[in-house]
Amino acid sequence: MNAREVELSGHIIDSLILPKVLDVIMDMGGDFKILEFEIGKRKTDPSYARILVSAETPSHLNEILDELSEIGASIAEIKEVELRAAEKDKVLPDGFYSTTNHPTFIFYEGEWRQVQDIEMDCMIVVDPKTKTAKCKPIGEIKKGDLVVVGREGIRVSPPERPRGKKGIFEFMGSAVSSEKPLITTIKRIASEIITVKNNGGKIALVAGPAVVHTGSAPIVAKMIREGFIDVLFAGNALATHDIENALYGTSLGICVKTGESVSRGHHHHIYAINEINKAGSIKAAVEKGILNEGIMYECVKNNIPFVLAGSIRDDGPLPDVITDVVKAQNEMRRYIREVDMVLMIATMLHSIAVGNLLPSHVKSICVDINPAAVTKLADRGSSQVVGVVTDVGAFLPILWDEIKKNK
Amino acid sequence: MNAREVELSGHIIDSLILPKVLDVIMDMGGDFKILEFEIGKRKTDPSYARILVSAETPSHLNEILDELSEIGASIAEIKEVELRAAEKDKVLPDGFYSTTNHPTFIFYEGEWRQVQDIEMDCMIVVDPKTKTAKCKPIGEIKKGDLVVVGREGIRVSPPERPRGKKGIFEFMGSAVSSEKPLITTIKRIASEIITVKNNGGKIALVAGPAVVHTGSAPIVAKMIREGFIDVLFAGNALATHDIENALYGTSLGICVKTGESVSRGHHHHIYAINEINKAGSIKAAVEKGILNEGIMYECVKNNIPFVLAGSIRDDGPLPDVITDVVKAQNEMRRYIREVDMVLMIATMLHSIAVGNLLPSHVKSICVDINPAAVTKLADRGSSQVVGVVTDVGAFLPILWDEIKKNK
Amino acid sequence: MNAREVELSGHIIDSLILPKVLDVIMDMGGDFKILEFEIGKRKTDPSYARILVSAETPSHLNEILDELSEIGASIAEIKEVELRAAEKDKVLPDGFYSTTNHPTFIFYEGEWRQVQDIEMDCMIVVDPKTKTAKCKPIGEIKKGDLVVVGREGIRVSPPERPRGKKGIFEFMGSAVSSEKPLITTIKRIASEIITVKNNGGKIALVAGPAVVHTGSAPIVAKMIREGFIDVLFAGNALATHDIENALYGTSLGICVKTGESVSRGHHHHIYAINEINKAGSIKAAVEKGILNEGIMYECVKNNIPFVLAGSIRDDGPLPDVITDVVKAQNEMRRYIREVDMVLMIATMLHSIAVGNLLPSHVKSICVDINPAAVTKLADRGSSQVVGVVTDVGAFLPILWDEIKKNK
Amino acid sequence: MNAREVELSGHIIDSLILPKVLDVIMDMGGDFKILEFEIGKRKTDPSYARILVSAETPSHLNEILDELSEIGASIAEIKEVELRAAEKDKVLPDGFYSTTNHPTFIFYEGEWRQVQDIEMDCMIVVDPKTKTAKCKPIGEIKKGDLVVVGREGIRVSPPERPRGKKGIFEFMGSAVSSEKPLITTIKRIASEIITVKNNGGKIALVAGPAVVHTGSAPIVAKMIREGFIDVLFAGNALATHDIENALYGTSLGICVKTGESVSRGHHHHIYAINEINKAGSIKAAVEKGILNEGIMYECVKNNIPFVLAGSIRDDGPLPDVITDVVKAQNEMRRYIREVDMVLMIATMLHSIAVGNLLPSHVKSICVDINPAAVTKLADRGSSQVVGVVTDVGAFLPILWDEIKKNK
Repeated sequence: MNAREVELSGHIIDSLILPKVLDVIMDMGGDFKILEFEIGKRKTDPSYARILVSAETPSHLNEILDELSEIGASIAEIKEVELRAAEKDKVLPDGFYSTTNHPTFIFYEGEWRQVQDIEMDCMIVVDPKTKTAKCKPIGEIKKGDLVVVGREGIRVSPPERPRGKKGIFEFMGSAVSSEKPLITTIKRIASEIITVKNNGGKIALVAGPAVVHTGSAPIVAKMIREGFIDVLFAGNALATHDIENALYGTSLGICVKTGESVSRGHHHHIYAINEINKAGSIKAAVEKGILNEGIMYECVKNNIPFVLAGSIRDDGPLPDVITDVVKAQNEMRRYIREVDMVLMIATMLHSIAVGNLLPSHVKSICVDINPAAVTKLADRGSSQVVGVVTDVGAFLPILWDEIKKNK
Repeated sequence: MNAREVELSGHIIDSLILPKVLDVIMDMGGDFKILEFEIGKRKTDPSYARILVSAETPSHLNEILDELSEIGASIAEIKEVELRAAEKDKVLPDGFYSTTNHPTFIFYEGEWRQVQDIEMDCMIVVDPKTKTAKCKPIGEIKKGDLVVVGREGIRVSPPERPRGKKGIFEFMGSAVSSEKPLITTIKRIASEIITVKNNGGKIALVAGPAVVHTGSAPIVAKMIREGFIDVLFAGNALATHDIENALYGTSLGICVKTGESVSRGHHHHIYAINEINKAGSIKAAVEKGILNEGIMYECVKNNIPFVLAGSIRDDGPLPDVITDVVKAQNEMRRYIREVDMVLMIATMLHSIAVGNLLPSHVKSICVDINPAAVTKLADRGSSQVVGVVTDVGAFLPILWDEIKKNK
Repeated sequence: MNAREVELSGHIIDSLILPKVLDVIMDMGGDFKILEFEIGKRKTDPSYARILVSAETPSHLNEILDELSEIGASIAEIKEVELRAAEKDKVLPDGFYSTTNHPTFIFYEGEWRQVQDIEMDCMIVVDPKTKTAKCKPIGEIKKGDLVVVGREGIRVSPPERPRGKKGIFEFMGSAVSSEKPLITTIKRIASEIITVKNNGGKIALVAGPAVVHTGSAPIVAKMIREGFIDVLFAGNALATHDIENALYGTSLGICVKTGESVSRGHHHHIYAINEINKAGSIKAAVEKGILNEGIMYECVKNNIPFVLAGSIRDDGPLPDVITDVVKAQNEMRRYIREVDMVLMIATMLHSIAVGNLLPSHVKSICVDINPAAVTKLADRGSSQVVGVVTDVGAFLPILWDEIKKNK
Repeated sequence: MNAREVELSGHIIDSLILPKVLDVIMDMGGDFKILEFEIGKRKTDPSYARILVSAETPSHLNEILDELSEIGASIAEIKEVELRAAEKDKVLPDGFYSTTNHPTFIFYEGEWRQVQDIEMDCMIVVDPKTKTAKCKPIGEIKKGDLVVVGREGIRVSPPERPRGKKGIFEFMGSAVSSEKPLITTIKRIASEIITVKNNGGKIALVAGPAVVHTGSAPIVAKMIREGFIDVLFAGNALATHDIENALYGTSLGICVKTGESVSRGHHHHIYAINEINKAGSIKAAVEKGILNEGIMYECVKNNIPFVLAGSIRDDGPLPDVITDVVKAQNEMRRYIREVDMVLMIATMLHSIAVGNLLPSHVKSICVDINPAAVTKLADRGSSQVVGVVTDVGAFLPILWDEIKKNK
């Protein structure tokens, strides 16, 4: 008979783990029998379920078990994780396990061990000397790496519903509507930012050029200067238009003060790139007194690291841009491990890029006037990201006011 | 102590009723103790839960009970429903119960009785002679109507997850993405339409003028002629541009065949209205041989009822338009009770209007190129509506091809 | 030969009248010969052109002349306007002239006379006693009305480009982008509002319920109280949610202060309607001290007229709502003649409705987070409307700050 | 006196060159006097204007002249173009001229010479030996390059309105509406594609992964096999999901045939990348019989070149992806010179990238369900791109039907 027991424990009802498990089994045409069930009688009591999952064929059963393991069910009978060596660089052994962005544990040499640097769509590589497991993207796999394969000895821990009232992140959850009280939403985000900073946490800003176009560069500059941003992830466009704005007062040729087109202004971004090329780098331009304000200036002045990742539509690009996207990703990974909160403002490309690298526990807020930007992020697995559909030109000034009031 | 027992039964785990109940209690700051829990061991076994809900104050407890009753929990100790007479037309007694769109039962004179014509945001009025309960909108309440008040003796039955694989409606559920295989989605909708018709069911079409603008009027006309549409809900614009198209080959002045502007074409809709005004009505224009094709023509020829509801932006309007919106709503109610499926195409206004009147078991599909149209419908409580974000100019021809292939 | 002379005068080059005339002739497959051309040598000098338009057939020529007349060309040889009597109510004589929203003149009894109450898609009716001409919608045509037909003796005056720099309205013209400096745009609108009020002008507000949902009702209330709004055009939803907000602090059941769902809050709007029904009207509710704040309250207190037009999706509706849409349109017409500026906030339905009634010289600003709302308005002929794609929840607080700073 | 004469010639009225010139002068606060004006009396006669432009200061005059030169005015008194050598790699001399995407000529050594490889936001570099001028992006500038500076001796030729009726491209011009007859629009595009191919022209396809998600990969594969596509510009996502679809029948884990989620399907794209990594390249995978269908397969089989440009959000990426974006741009430039038409389907990133490289005479069509994608392209200067707002899942099947009917 093609059946196997799985176990669930924790707040599995209201965190939707048990309902999802039953849903997946039925959706996939399998069957179940609940063998044991102890419900947590009170709010803080965990529940426990042991379920016999059955299917028509062994492979059908395996497919169901694969899905269940991603949503938090673990196979009741614990076996050691299975490892197989990569035969070539960037080539994975058959049956390799591809990660989720939730905390993940492998049962290796008799113990559950947490996988480090968890990130979705990656592989788990085990170091037999240190007995540690680490997440690696396929492009970083080296010949001989011991890669986790199969489905035994793997346990995933999806986030649970908090006991009591939901916080800002759970509260806004699926809410991408522009028909909610905006000021209230911003107040809550401001308060979350202050809490993170008061607790010594780190905040990453992911920003697109619309931040500059809409006139909010001075606000982001202030946020950096006053210590609210710990790392900046952006592209050539954000940096170029920020520098254009600092040097010529325009963004994409539009005067940010008057909103009017400026003579030959649409060439200003090329002038800006030329000035930085002359200086050699953004840092050099700041040091030589050429660049005296703006987002990039404040990063340099306040030693805030920035990763400018190249894109195929870049003009220039600036000398600081990492034109190789794989190198840029790895540079982002260096900083992202320490981040406690991410603000994603007006850039679908970079938001999805950062979302891909984030573990599910990192609180993220994605602000865009285009509802599709937020939807796409969630579709791509970054379900921990809270979306706010609004105009960034309004969001940032109001956010800053609220931060100042409360800090 | 401010506590009361509630009961849940059915497929309460995978239909998310139990998780939602716990979620609501925690969100509202209440507490719970699960007194009794019998889990359905197999797919088809129902589960049962008896839960003690407690709160800080009696009014807090009542608030929680109110919310729980809407999602399917019923108070364990059954009391008679409470009734109070309306003191004036259109004026409700204090504490009146406002309905959901789910099947609802009241415990009246010792028996559970189903409320007829259920519709959200309405009142339950009881006829003591016939011992029947009926849904009425506030505007239809008459002095002396016995209106249900309070929270005792009311039971709501939200839809349950089907046992086994989900069907087209559950499958597409929240999916409003335009990044799904479109043809497949349309095939499934076509197959659902054929099933409804083969079972003798009735289909309502709710259509906006973009149906005509995008060149799909002939397809809707065919759907009506071949018996796939049983009632049409629309506005002056759909009818006017359909008639404009029939008489002059244009819609909003654009030649539907060539896509080009036609000389003074943007006045054609006024010409069309004038022709119908001359004839006296759309029916008269068909009978006099003035109107010989199109959506409205086929409705008349095939005795398909239509309700054209007026809107503040109407030109004309056509003599068939019901310019009083309350009368138009009531006319729509006449037909909507018998409808088994609703197609909502390219009209946010009329789709929300029809959504407001629909009970939760009626399958509905809302097609719009604007994701907001679908989101808004769900936000307003019509969660049974499946959204398809696509171009109606493409959806209708492909849908018709699929219907023809399979009927 | 099928040819006729037309004349153009004014700033016909930079106001694009001459280019459009040549464009239309070529697009429609006609031919032209420029018989006379005097260019205005300096900025303030008008130009003049006399052009021989030719076509293959007389009807082809007439079609071209029809189009040219709408964009400001007039037939060189002036004849009397042709009139024909309506044979029935709401029925127009063949060949009737359908209006644009530009100032229009008819040559009647030897003189050019301006058509009063100009509005697009209407008819020109002449009173032979007073020798005046007036615009009437088709629904208001009475048997015996003398209606302008044909193309002789009609002259249309499209707006000209201002000499010198463009103002706010020309400047933003086609700009619906959300990638512009928002604060700057709002500053300009604020300054325009102040100018209109300082000159004794009147401002109409057209508002949708998102104004309340997003938490901006108190700001609109202040704008009314301080005299910036002279008439309000809205629907049942705006008024209902404003009153819901005033009575219960929620909008569509969401607490506007905290952004959280409130227990049974989605029924609050029905409670609000019930309270007004009890009182008899919004005015009565204010007088009885039931309604003490908000948009509708300030309208009543400050004698600001409001027109609440019914829509097919209304719950209730409130007793003040005009449920017959034709009556509602006529009520709007009463106020719109005196309006100098229109603010359209977050309502596509009512914005298009008001846009339909506006002459082309009335400055209008349409604010919506959905770019389609603005595009549709322009597509329907209201090209004088400036679109701002932003979040109304942010727009209104910032606008009010700017107004206060500058008034 | 700060004044200078400029000249315009051609169809300067209906192509809007003269109106724009006057508009710019007035907008920038300058003044003009038309010294000479000869209007083209008939459709095919060119017009000529000589205009004295004046301004308050010499620099103000220069600003105005700069703007005028971009829209087709040339300074009447012809001087030699001014050149200055670049002092460092990637560093431009002060006052460098930044190009438009229109045909551009420089007056160098007594003759007007056309600039080769014109592309917007680039520099003109002159080779004194061959006396030729070429466009170069800033990143390709080498020390010693002779770069055009200032405003003398430069002439730009914006496209003119065609004589007679407008073609598909002019006709759709600004039209991004989804309220147009879709089938008609697609018929016109199909006919344009056939014309280009019949004339021996080349067509580039720029495609995003939604092409595969929506189930249209087989259609694109057919278009390649049957010779309608001459080069493919895309990213890692398009290629990966196309290969995922070919190997596993899914795209982003959704079964393209049934539209349903597949067990662990969201890891399929990683499996696909692993298979190609094993083979070494897409070409090798085709040759080894691993990859047997789809877009990439057909490119390999039919020797259609493809440029896969890396992006920061890539998983993998595939070994064929050019991860350095500057190299990827240059690879795109190799092919783009020979292209006569571009189809841009469902990718804002790559569409803008290609739009940046295109000269203004190359006909381009951008298809996206998101109106912002089209608007942004135009905002960034690619005004020759025609936008069609529709669902790509519908567009491609219908387009292919129309091509087959007519080829």
